[in-house]
Amino acid sequence: MANIKISVVITARPSYSRIKSFLKSLKKDHGIELQLIVAGSALLSKYGSATEVIEKDGFDITEKIHFLIEGNQPSLMGKSTGLALIEFSTIFKKINPDAIIVIADRYETIAVSIAASYQNIPLIHLQGGEISGNIDNKVRNANSSLADYHFVSNQVAKKRLTNRGIEPETIFITGCPSIDIAKEVLLNSKPPLSLFHDYTGVGPIFDITESYLVVLQHPVTNEYGEAKTQIEQTLEAVYKSGINAVWLWPNPDAGTDQISAGIRHFREMNPDNKIHFFKNIEPSDFLQLLLHSKCIIGNSSVGIRECSFLGVPAINIGSRQKLRDHSINVIHVDYDKNEIYEAIQQADSMKINSNSLYGNGHSGEMMLKYLKSLKQKF
Amino acid sequence: MANIKISVVITARPSYSRIKSFLKSLKKDHGIELQLIVAGSALLSKYGSATEVIEKDGFDITEKIHFLIEGNQPSLMGKSTGLALIEFSTIFKKINPDAIIVIADRYETIAVSIAASYQNIPLIHLQGGEISGNIDNKVRNANSSLADYHFVSNQVAKKRLTNRGIEPETIFITGCPSIDIAKEVLLNSKPPLSLFHDYTGVGPIFDITESYLVVLQHPVTNEYGEAKTQIEQTLEAVYKSGINAVWLWPNPDAGTDQISAGIRHFREMNPDNKIHFFKNIEPSDFLQLLLHSKCIIGNSSVGIRECSFLGVPAINIGSRQKLRDHSINVIHVDYDKNEIYEAIQQADSMKINSNSLYGNGHSGEMMLKYLKSLKQKF
Amino acid sequence: MANIKISVVITARPSYSRIKSFLKSLKKDHGIELQLIVAGSALLSKYGSATEVIEKDGFDITEKIHFLIEGNQPSLMGKSTGLALIEFSTIFKKINPDAIIVIADRYETIAVSIAASYQNIPLIHLQGGEISGNIDNKVRNANSSLADYHFVSNQVAKKRLTNRGIEPETIFITGCPSIDIAKEVLLNSKPPLSLFHDYTGVGPIFDITESYLVVLQHPVTNEYGEAKTQIEQTLEAVYKSGINAVWLWPNPDAGTDQISAGIRHFREMNPDNKIHFFKNIEPSDFLQLLLHSKCIIGNSSVGIRECSFLGVPAINIGSRQKLRDHSINVIHVDYDKNEIYEAIQQADSMKINSNSLYGNGHSGEMMLKYLKSLKQKF
Amino acid sequence: MANIKISVVITARPSYSRIKSFLKSLKKDHGIELQLIVAGSALLSKYGSATEVIEKDGFDITEKIHFLIEGNQPSLMGKSTGLALIEFSTIFKKINPDAIIVIADRYETIAVSIAASYQNIPLIHLQGGEISGNIDNKVRNANSSLADYHFVSNQVAKKRLTNRGIEPETIFITGCPSIDIAKEVLLNSKPPLSLFHDYTGVGPIFDITESYLVVLQHPVTNEYGEAKTQIEQTLEAVYKSGINAVWLWPNPDAGTDQISAGIRHFREMNPDNKIHFFKNIEPSDFLQLLLHSKCIIGNSSVGIRECSFLGVPAINIGSRQKLRDHSINVIHVDYDKNEIYEAIQQADSMKINSNSLYGNGHSGEMMLKYLKSLKQKF
Repeated sequence: MANIKISVVITARPSYSRIKSFLKSLKKDHGIELQLIVAGSALLSKYGSATEVIEKDGFDITEKIHFLIEGNQPSLMGKSTGLALIEFSTIFKKINPDAIIVIADRYETIAVSIAASYQNIPLIHLQGGEISGNIDNKVRNANSSLADYHFVSNQVAKKRLTNRGIEPETIFITGCPSIDIAKEVLLNSKPPLSLFHDYTGVGPIFDITESYLVVLQHPVTNEYGEAKTQIEQTLEAVYKSGINAVWLWPNPDAGTDQISAGIRHFREMNPDNKIHFFKNIEPSDFLQLLLHSKCIIGNSSVGIRECSFLGVPAINIGSRQKLRDHSINVIHVDYDKNEIYEAIQQADSMKINSNSLYGNGHSGEMMLKYLKSLKQKF
Repeated sequence: MANIKISVVITARPSYSRIKSFLKSLKKDHGIELQLIVAGSALLSKYGSATEVIEKDGFDITEKIHFLIEGNQPSLMGKSTGLALIEFSTIFKKINPDAIIVIADRYETIAVSIAASYQNIPLIHLQGGEISGNIDNKVRNANSSLADYHFVSNQVAKKRLTNRGIEPETIFITGCPSIDIAKEVLLNSKPPLSLFHDYTGVGPIFDITESYLVVLQHPVTNEYGEAKTQIEQTLEAVYKSGINAVWLWPNPDAGTDQISAGIRHFREMNPDNKIHFFKNIEPSDFLQLLLHSKCIIGNSSVGIRECSFLGVPAINIGSRQKLRDHSINVIHVDYDKNEIYEAIQQADSMKINSNSLYGNGHSGEMMLKYLKSLKQKF
Repeated sequence: MANIKISVVITARPSYSRIKSFLKSLKKDHGIELQLIVAGSALLSKYGSATEVIEKDGFDITEKIHFLIEGNQPSLMGKSTGLALIEFSTIFKKINPDAIIVIADRYETIAVSIAASYQNIPLIHLQGGEISGNIDNKVRNANSSLADYHFVSNQVAKKRLTNRGIEPETIFITGCPSIDIAKEVLLNSKPPLSLFHDYTGVGPIFDITESYLVVLQHPVTNEYGEAKTQIEQTLEAVYKSGINAVWLWPNPDAGTDQISAGIRHFREMNPDNKIHFFKNIEPSDFLQLLLHSKCIIGNSSVGIRECSFLGVPAINIGSRQKLRDHSINVIHVDYDKNEIYEAIQQADSMKINSNSLYGNGHSGEMMLKYLKSLKQKF
Repeated sequence: MANIKISVVITARPSYSRIKSFLKSLKKDHGIELQLIVAGSALLSKYGSATEVIEKDGFDITEKIHFLIEGNQPSLMGKSTGLALIEFSTIFKKINPDAIIVIADRYETIAVSIAASYQNIPLIHLQGGEISGNIDNKVRNANSSLADYHFVSNQVAKKRLTNRGIEPETIFITGCPSIDIAKEVLLNSKPPLSLFHDYTGVGPIFDITESYLVVLQHPVTNEYGEAKTQIEQTLEAVYKSGINAVWLWPNPDAGTDQISAGIRHFREMNPDNKIHFFKNIEPSDFLQLLLHSKCIIGNSSVGIRECSFLGVPAINIGSRQKLRDHSINVIHVDYDKNEIYEAIQQADSMKINSNSLYGNGHSGEMMLKYLKSLKQKF
């Protein structure tokens, strides 16, 4: 009996969480051959090799595609994407999938969408119809424009896509698989006691059963040049709070080097700081970490999405996620140490319930179901 | 006093007509430095070197960018676009424009949009919000998603963009500069008496003052594999009509080789055919040719756009332009020699008036005016 | 028992003749898995799709790699080679051969050599140690520098390589497989009676049993800009001779368009010319054509190599093959219609014997034997 | 009066030392326009931004070209070179130099040579005719094959090139500009007292007026996979010697990550080690550091070249420089902690005089003189 071949492309560590439960469903299904492509920063140890985590989770990686050109300037985002487009075109022709799945809105994902659509391979886009900041927005909408099918988080997202002239019958409300992981974490809540044992980072080690903050702040592409100043505001606010903090390393975009420089300088100037920096933490461990934290600070979508389901306050800084649909767990602040400091105080007193804005914890299964319903159209 | 630098990218012969009058306005304005980039098939003699026409019209070409990878298969569209993205990223960084203008919906134009938006250079997209077939549609919408400003043809197009969540104040109704050329042609109507003298083609030479058809049929990207069969239907219908015909060579997309093969085979089998084939005709000569023709046959947007203004019947074949907004000059038919033949009869009896659906003949000036109003935002 | 995987890369039509008998030997051997890669101009119908011939000869093509960027300027040779290097790197990693075979001296072959040597895959270079003109020379020597083993044509070639410090035990005198085909042709000599039936060309059809010339003249890369003038000299000399001629279309290098332009212009100006132009002729038919010709004119290495074995006079024009080792069948002339015309007269009276400077007709088998002797070093 | 434009391409930090004095001569000459291109790892802070040093030395950088694809596997060397070839082809066409200068033997330099020679731009290669290990050897010889002129270190190198059939009149014995710097350092000998103040590294700070070792060990491309084991031998030997050491970070080739891992692991296991690690030290400071050191350990060519002139013992490990022409300052050892340890003892008792095998300290001026003598041939 003929299987269908489904290619899933993961280009960054965070994207893996947004697809993992769906990958599990795909892998289990005997009518489907999963072609898992891991690419870009997901392959690089300096951003926490997603590959190791993925393989440890039992997935076979079909292809590994390198395309990131080293250097720190906006024009290299375009060039890396161009190289990715050349490489994805080669691979898709070679492995000849029946459909390709592209995730969300990172700049390089547009290469997946173009390679697929120019070869007339059905393209399924995850997380279309949402709103965030800027270049992510542009990329997400371009991906939606190029895609044939859309697995979206909620009714609001679907409405935005239909407003754009996308046929309603090509849009499926599935929620986000990241919430499936969050649900498991909620059901198996336990403090991340072995954090400092399981992961190697830098900075002081503290008692994780006590109160702590989590920070994850990415450079903002079109605010290139301000990354260092922006990160300093957060560093100072966290420092001033006097609360222990776990700080996660950001994505490999233009600006990362400036963030690194800012952090390095801060650590030298403030040897008494209480921040422990990690390069990478496995998704489910990260969610347990969040679940037991005081709040998350930064501009990661995790604060808006998973933390909404986990009921954890999120202090969202600046423009990157400002426009994203959110529930009541979010406090928006500017790149301003005082605002951030005050929001930390405010988060302390918040009591948040779980919210299913981004999914109910069954997205992986729903995606599989809808995918199979599309089978005859591929 | 500081000028603003405006980059305009032309990637194909037909795109030049859609920008020419705007280019003239840009060139005349002393506050603007025009950086004209000619690229892709616009550089290749086999598609009629747009470069010669452009230079003859008095424009200086700032950069010539080659990126088309030779071969005839869909995966090369992706690869060529990837290479284009690498090249445009280099050039935009080098010439550092204040804004970049990208035209319409050809597959390679997305490379311009990505290169511009990833470098945070304001991007103005022309002809967004329209609808045509398939991959063009996807590319046009992706370009709109990546663009910061939109110069559109009409109110319908603007409405589609605002429905997509694009801010109305970034959308400007300008009409299409191709209509400016059509207007000049209308005002200076004269039969193309020197056609066979001015252009070298193959096939019989006939009396151009008598009745003739014009044919321009492109391969349809996602119907790759059927290009030869499709062109044969048109060839046979035109042959059966017994009317003289001028046939224009198509765009360099996947499928072009099959069209060439179909035409070559037809010519060998039917040495008594009355079709003269041209590789390229200068835009204004082409419009005069259309103005005095019985009708245009094929799937070029010229039939929908310029011919609407010229009041020339257009027999539109197949899916490529089916969904495009059109006025009453258009007869839609399938890839079917009988349908095409009958439509030729029908076109004979049609009497069409000029329609301003795609512009009123002043688009170039309007675009310049709106561009200058945006100056302080660049 | 473990096979060894041998990758052979063919990037142009003429290269196929230079490897065909070796390919046959490789294919027959059960201890070897042949990975045949066809690439570049060998894939393009406009240069005579080598692929069709190769497949008709019973070989399975493992990979087809497109990398030629369309356009006619020297910088694109570098860019196409760069793209080829990206593509070959992908493919070699994927198919993981035990050794890679690269042929001769075309500009794009250096991409094969770099991709192989940078991945530490043993590289066998064919036809090292010879001398021809210019850029070919540079590329051939660079390929020798990058290669681990060398299958050379004769003792002279071996001596040149050892002079360069290449270890004698890595050099094997095998002759050139093209001579194997020439030998078969010699043994089965018959006039190419069905030439005009089997191949479609343009120009007058003549009685092939009568006296005729063969012409094959490539553009010379570093004399870019003079290609049109150069071809005109040859056209006029052939025209003046009044002898029928078969003219083969040249390689896709910078300058090809100028040659085409020169030929087109000549044909228009001289409708009474006696030249028939073919795009491509299958190697063995081409050799029969040569064997029964008066002489070959141009700058193809076939005149120097195969014609030496066939005993056919060769009028070699200009710098391209000037320095190549040759036997007494060769007359060197400049780009000068008078010199060429006189050489045609001279060739008429020459009587040449077969010479084994480039092989004795058993190269394919010898190459296989030496390859297998290297097996344990791979 | 017409100047000549000379492009010099620097792709790595160490290459700058090998050209610096020549650059100074070029810059001073009013008949020459210097087009300085800095590319590849020379742009990356993680390998010590050569750009900062170059600009501090008063040179204007004409172009910065990024092409290194992130990741740690041999196939990416080929791909990065392919991308470099695309980029250099663009830039050379754009800046249109009269001649291009390429340095030595790093893998990516072949892209410079190909881009230049395929555009028929005269190419001058520095340091041809030498011998080192392996892939460097292949690349150096390929560069010589592609070059038109050769500035070599000594008579031995010239002889090797003429043996290869290169015309003697295209070869100029100039010595290596790196020796010019070494001469200045010899003439201005002073201990590097401010080393720990001027450069930020990791590891213990010690009294630099006391005895110390210098280590610089690169991964060896075709011994990929053994880099970690190899570096461990050196680390243990240095550790066992009990002598203070300054350790320089290696080049960005496949294998660098393994070296980093080896070093990290060693530092954790041996917190009492006496090694200070630096990412980058300005060339002249580095030479002062060497001049006052006990010896240099590793596989850098600095040990063979500059240290020969400085009269500093060099313990050369493994295959990388084994075949390089050397004077009596060199002790060859294997990747073996005991051999290395014993060589450290031996070096202690050596007394070495300055040797001019790689130049007499006036290379920059000689190169300028010869370049100007070639002017009319460009």
